[in-house]
Amino acid sequence: MPSPVGPEIERLIQLLARLPGLGPRSARRAALHLIKKREQLLAPLAEAVRIAAERVVVCSSCGNVDTSDPCAICADARRDPSVLIVVEDVSDLWALERAAVMNARYHVLGGVLSALDGVRPEDLNLEGLVARAAAPEVKEVILALNATVDGQTTAHYITDLLSQLPVKITRLAHGVPVGGELDYLDEGTLSAAIRQRTSF
Amino acid sequence: MPSPVGPEIERLIQLLARLPGLGPRSARRAALHLIKKREQLLAPLAEAVRIAAERVVVCSSCGNVDTSDPCAICADARRDPSVLIVVEDVSDLWALERAAVMNARYHVLGGVLSALDGVRPEDLNLEGLVARAAAPEVKEVILALNATVDGQTTAHYITDLLSQLPVKITRLAHGVPVGGELDYLDEGTLSAAIRQRTSF
Repeated sequence: MPSPVGPEIERLIQLLARLPGLGPRSARRAALHLIKKREQLLAPLAEAVRIAAERVVVCSSCGNVDTSDPCAICADARRDPSVLIVVEDVSDLWALERAAVMNARYHVLGGVLSALDGVRPEDLNLEGLVARAAAPEVKEVILALNATVDGQTTAHYITDLLSQLPVKITRLAHGVPVGGELDYLDEGTLSAAIRQRTSF
Repeated sequence: MPSPVGPEIERLIQLLARLPGLGPRSARRAALHLIKKREQLLAPLAEAVRIAAERVVVCSSCGNVDTSDPCAICADARRDPSVLIVVEDVSDLWALERAAVMNARYHVLGGVLSALDGVRPEDLNLEGLVARAAAPEVKEVILALNATVDGQTTAHYITDLLSQLPVKITRLAHGVPVGGELDYLDEGTLSAAIRQRTSF
């Protein structure tokens, strides 16, 4: 069946459909929305995407994405140089920054070890991590990895990898999510929350 | 809280978040996905959005969006000139074209009458419809409007509007959706499906 839309719109729809969270139908709705809101949305988005395509680079130090290398976080002199927070992905870095809990620097692995997906140590940014963790000013490495099998496997692997270095290696606490209801939590989380209970 | 990302990426995220179907979180995921897939996705999307912003226009005849005015459908000499299909929105036009059931031309109202949303007749592309329906070659006007209160109100309004013209006015049949289960259908649909039953 020939497409009811011209090739230009069809191309836009197909590219939008490749974004996570947008299927073919929602991509069509998004494209139409863009076209209708030409001034407020389509033109600005064209500019924003162009600028991102031109300027965004991956930080050679931590693996974050930014328009400068080193990224704004690595270049920020007010960050605590003694702590490195290891994350799987840039999205995790963004999440922790939104939480604004630590004023430290990050190290993005670019994935986690996975036998299923065939992700091996050499596929991750581990060399860079060892080099950075070996820096004299670094005192602690926080493994902020997902509480999944692969995430914890990677955490153990990194712990071994850094065992020779004089750095303290920590990981995120397990427990009840803020606002979480015990009734809906799995046994593993609950037992961890009990074991790691804190004084009131 | 300062944004963890640079202004360029933040701008991209905020524009993506305004697309239907993308919330703030999924917009961040989409932006990150774009940045990671620079060559395969980000650059092509920049080009596609730019081209769409430059070339896409609204058809002055039917209200469809295309890169030419009149649009490809209006300009298509193989289309049956005797039938006009009235739709609320371009997305409905696309849906009917995908169904490829009629080889006719369309008329996009750009909305439906709605007391709630304050949409009045002068807000819709009705003048153009009357003018087109008055053309000698037009024999039938199909009101392909949503089976909602507003859609049907608009259908009745248009029927009155065109009552002086020598055109047959039809509307979509009500009935059981293909693949639909009776058990899940409302009484209105079922009674309509019974009343408008066809011989087997």
